[in-house]
Amino acid sequence: MAEYIESLQRLAEQFGQLPGVGRKSAMRMAFSVLALEDEVVQEFADVMLEAKRVVHACPVCGNLTDKDVCSVCNDLSRDRGLICVVEDVKAVMSIEKVREYRGVYHVLGGVISPVNGITPDKIRFRELIERVGTDDVREVIIATNPTPDGEVTAMYISKYLKPLGVKVTRLAYGVPVGSDLEYADEITLGRAIEGRRDV
Amino acid sequence: MAEYIESLQRLAEQFGQLPGVGRKSAMRMAFSVLALEDEVVQEFADVMLEAKRVVHACPVCGNLTDKDVCSVCNDLSRDRGLICVVEDVKAVMSIEKVREYRGVYHVLGGVISPVNGITPDKIRFRELIERVGTDDVREVIIATNPTPDGEVTAMYISKYLKPLGVKVTRLAYGVPVGSDLEYADEITLGRAIEGRRDV
Repeated sequence: MAEYIESLQRLAEQFGQLPGVGRKSAMRMAFSVLALEDEVVQEFADVMLEAKRVVHACPVCGNLTDKDVCSVCNDLSRDRGLICVVEDVKAVMSIEKVREYRGVYHVLGGVISPVNGITPDKIRFRELIERVGTDDVREVIIATNPTPDGEVTAMYISKYLKPLGVKVTRLAYGVPVGSDLEYADEITLGRAIEGRRDV
Repeated sequence: MAEYIESLQRLAEQFGQLPGVGRKSAMRMAFSVLALEDEVVQEFADVMLEAKRVVHACPVCGNLTDKDVCSVCNDLSRDRGLICVVEDVKAVMSIEKVREYRGVYHVLGGVISPVNGITPDKIRFRELIERVGTDDVREVIIATNPTPDGEVTAMYISKYLKPLGVKVTRLAYGVPVGSDLEYADEITLGRAIEGRRDV
């Protein structure tokens, strides 16, 4: 009985820990791996270990990279006087897809959430203040998600940055309220960047 | 830009080859792997390679196993005179879950499909005939899927087996238990009426 094939069961469990993968999907994935060629499965495993080994956070902005600094920070044509503050790397990817934004990023790695015990010192907030103080930053666009925690974080950051004489803006509400930047389409996201407002 | 992190992109492509995984899901899975502990990712890769290495088709029935023969064929309490013919290993799992069937299986590894060039010699049809000829088989239950190709395969097998003096049966068609007649399609309902039984 296939259910009792331990190694298959264990593989299904591995897939089951991925986001959005239920018990049946996990088993279907495990089966599909068995149907792949030996070399393909070997490559799958190699690629997974390799990605985990080489990908790390950019020391400047917190974006993911497999180089010393990320490709955005490494791009000399990007405007270092303009920082877009986002919650996570997925938001960086979403904004980059628009191909309209020419500044750099700052990935917070979370949002302030008193309910969940996430205080400003648990996200990359101090690093942001340091960057704004050191680099010649003109404007900070706060692009946290339009959720209550994202709003709180935006307010907190703007209150801290304004006395430093930097222009602080927030993405326009072209992004549907209550959703996640990851799921916004390119046009909506483009409008949101275009219509950013002072906070 | 995270899209350009080659190792992350390559990992997403690996996940993208799994069934039911689209571009966005694949990227989300790749991200989630990065968030796992090193040991967990190592185990994931190991389990995948191990499963691919040890799981193979049972030489008797074609079911998957990591032993010499599968757990069903290895179970002496199972009735070897009763063979259930299925298309694939997933069907074996589905039937085993019912915990009612006490016979053995024969996995065809596909169905006859003239349109797709799948002739009887491309599935484990000859092996079935051989088993029926050698073992003391009383009955063969054909449990191919109720699709046109599944029906053709069932007809073909039954025509071959009947002259051998073996009883050939087909799974009953009907309205799924717990559903509503209102939602049953015409063909299913037609078959359910056709196959009505005394109560």
